[in-house]
Amino acid sequence: MVTTTSQHISQQFENELQDIRSRVLAMGGLVEQQVHNAMEALIKGDADIAREVIAYDDEVNSLEVSIDEECIQIIALRQPTAGDLRLVSGILKTITDLERIGDESVRIARMALNLSEKDRPKHNYRELQAMGNHVRGMLRDALDAFARFDVDMALRVAKEDREVDAEYEAILRQLMTYMMEDTRAVTRVIDMMWSARSLERIGDHANNICEHIIYLVEGKDVRHLSIEKAEQVIKGQLIE
Amino acid sequence: MVTTTSQHISQQFENELQDIRSRVLAMGGLVEQQVHNAMEALIKGDADIAREVIAYDDEVNSLEVSIDEECIQIIALRQPTAGDLRLVSGILKTITDLERIGDESVRIARMALNLSEKDRPKHNYRELQAMGNHVRGMLRDALDAFARFDVDMALRVAKEDREVDAEYEAILRQLMTYMMEDTRAVTRVIDMMWSARSLERIGDHANNICEHIIYLVEGKDVRHLSIEKAEQVIKGQLIE
Repeated sequence: MVTTTSQHISQQFENELQDIRSRVLAMGGLVEQQVHNAMEALIKGDADIAREVIAYDDEVNSLEVSIDEECIQIIALRQPTAGDLRLVSGILKTITDLERIGDESVRIARMALNLSEKDRPKHNYRELQAMGNHVRGMLRDALDAFARFDVDMALRVAKEDREVDAEYEAILRQLMTYMMEDTRAVTRVIDMMWSARSLERIGDHANNICEHIIYLVEGKDVRHLSIEKAEQVIKGQLIE
Repeated sequence: MVTTTSQHISQQFENELQDIRSRVLAMGGLVEQQVHNAMEALIKGDADIAREVIAYDDEVNSLEVSIDEECIQIIALRQPTAGDLRLVSGILKTITDLERIGDESVRIARMALNLSEKDRPKHNYRELQAMGNHVRGMLRDALDAFARFDVDMALRVAKEDREVDAEYEAILRQLMTYMMEDTRAVTRVIDMMWSARSLERIGDHANNICEHIIYLVEGKDVRHLSIEKAEQVIKGQLIE
């Protein structure tokens, strides 16, 4: 009888963890869509899409609050240990990063609103578009790595953050040149700079999510380590 | 005998919670110092102080990782419920914000390094200095509110974030004017803009910390609510 009850509870607990993972992935999907729409609003100068992104942020925020509450409830009621506890605490961190990616999408949407009223430059934000695609790819792959608890994939995504940083630096240099060539373009170029900065931050958050995946799967905290050191820590554990 | 053991455990647990709270305050003190030094480096154009801030970030990061581990250990071993669980989970969130304030200080220090090699403007970053003082005051008060679990003080600090946002907007407008008046100043002014943005973010994080305090004291999640709504939620609970 005792065994049956505890099996029952353990099955319920498994279901709860599964449910939370699905909800994190649903939140991730929504946030990815927000990044996509914010970039579309920016590139096409579409104020309607921009306003939609801003309005949808409430949805992202309530998802964070409700998953957060669910995690705290699970810790309180199920008192998970070891791997399960790492999973729940890794999820708590992951949704913070997802929520902040949502915030950055709103910032880009606000810039898109500003820019929709101004003349469009000939290059039509080509570099921002390329950086946006890159960052969205990182986010999608980070969510895939989360879905499959795939540490190798998480490490690959984390490596890409450097390329995004390099792209960002190149865009900044170019924008400063535009600004010096034509002072009438200053406000427009500043809006583009803020957008580039938001994309760079989204890359950082995707990178953080990958670190959380490594932590929850391997039990190693690789935040604040270089990718090379993170790889060594993980390989070291595999040999042990 | 059983009572003695459980009293003993409960006393130990109390001590652990007390220890974590002191460590959070120590981390807060260090982060406050980092903001102070970063601003000093910026205003005085002192590259040495700037490099010190950048070097000290490791200290902030390891404090975050170790307090984080301590919290997870406490949840796993002590299985706290209700108020204690809220305290631990509120601390987990608070140290994330403190660590990010540390990151923003490093960003300001990097700008200070850039600016230390350039001519200093006549106004000597007066507006940035005022905004920096304001934001540091918010952070100090947020840490005081944390030390005393003072919800009223937390609400007062959260209200100030709006003033900081208004200061930030005014600084941006002024910086754009400088830029349009003198294109040779573009790179310097951009560095000032990034610094202002970092200060604005530090204000946001101080605001987040206040929301965590309200959550851990009152058990109400007031994130993503306006100050007015947050006050209503808290007062509503007091009347109930």
